[in-house]
Amino acid sequence: MRLRNIKNALEILMSNPNIIAKPEDYKTQWFRVFENNNPIYIEIGMGKGDFIISMALKYPNINFIGIEKQASVLVRAAQKIESKIPNLKLINADASTLNNIFDQEINAIYLNHSDPWPKAKHAKRRLTSPTFLNLYQQISIDNLILYMRTDNKNLFEYSIEQFVENGFIIKNINHNLPETTDVITEYEKKFRKLGYPIYYLEAFYGKK
Amino acid sequence: MRLRNIKNALEILMSNPNIIAKPEDYKTQWFRVFENNNPIYIEIGMGKGDFIISMALKYPNINFIGIEKQASVLVRAAQKIESKIPNLKLINADASTLNNIFDQEINAIYLNHSDPWPKAKHAKRRLTSPTFLNLYQQISIDNLILYMRTDNKNLFEYSIEQFVENGFIIKNINHNLPETTDVITEYEKKFRKLGYPIYYLEAFYGKK
Repeated sequence: MRLRNIKNALEILMSNPNIIAKPEDYKTQWFRVFENNNPIYIEIGMGKGDFIISMALKYPNINFIGIEKQASVLVRAAQKIESKIPNLKLINADASTLNNIFDQEINAIYLNHSDPWPKAKHAKRRLTSPTFLNLYQQISIDNLILYMRTDNKNLFEYSIEQFVENGFIIKNINHNLPETTDVITEYEKKFRKLGYPIYYLEAFYGKK
Repeated sequence: MRLRNIKNALEILMSNPNIIAKPEDYKTQWFRVFENNNPIYIEIGMGKGDFIISMALKYPNINFIGIEKQASVLVRAAQKIESKIPNLKLINADASTLNNIFDQEINAIYLNHSDPWPKAKHAKRRLTSPTFLNLYQQISIDNLILYMRTDNKNLFEYSIEQFVENGFIIKNINHNLPETTDVITEYEKKFRKLGYPIYYLEAFYGKK
């Protein structure tokens, strides 16, 4: 746990009402955490949380969970939230451990501008590698929808191939997504200002 | 009909045993042309025919039809065939008229290095535009598989989007297809020598 430039970070992690300190304790029980049966959407690699916080405020009937492996970054996200948002939780976890935290209870996954891990020898670390896609299938309900956006052409092409090879069906795809009024990350706003294309897709996985 | 540098081209067109001069006459009757019920695979824009001729020789239990809109090019293809190939027919037609020639009888379509029509105003002419995809659905049996390869990144990205939006499911895709021992076009051989990637996909359409 790397905590830079933030005092009392551990204390914040443990006491902030939006942070779930021991998420493994709630496997199969997330409906209890939210106290309802609304669908659960997760963002893997939420960074400073702009996207997931905005989404939670915009869609109160969906439960959102932001996942970030760097505790220091998670704390920054938590500090942005002035009062408790009932349909939002933040957790400090590495994506590879998600099957210890969830079991057949996730409806949708957001991958927003994930690390492209450009070297071939690091391909397994990409969040759309076969190992991760298999893990997403484990943690999801019968029908999973995955929303991906990236500015990285190579990651996008790699991801399309992995989705197709691993039983996902691409439902919507755009190699140069027009600017919308949707919630977008700070990162994407900066990138769009530079005029580069944003690649977008929605991939569906049905267990039946 | 543009006939350049080829003498007696019209005569060849009418007399060559592999060319079907009036393909409209055989709509719904192609099994009679081939005298069997084997699956029918067509190549749209066969050019000089290297691919479709090689495929017909390699797979005698599949019926192949090569389609080329330029009569002069079709004649060149026909001239390459020394003796009649029973599972191969060549026809002179524009892709936009294929629904006058076939009706629910095609099993597979090859699009090999189709014209990319790079200008947006010409997008409708691309062989993967919505109008053409709809036409392919009309001429195919219940389950159509379409094999596409191109060296043109923009055509490929456009095509993926059109397939996904028009009810096709991408079953196999590669943004840098390795060299194989498969039958490939002369065009592709030259292009591969230059070291550029070949984009490949298989798109499935099921009517039921």
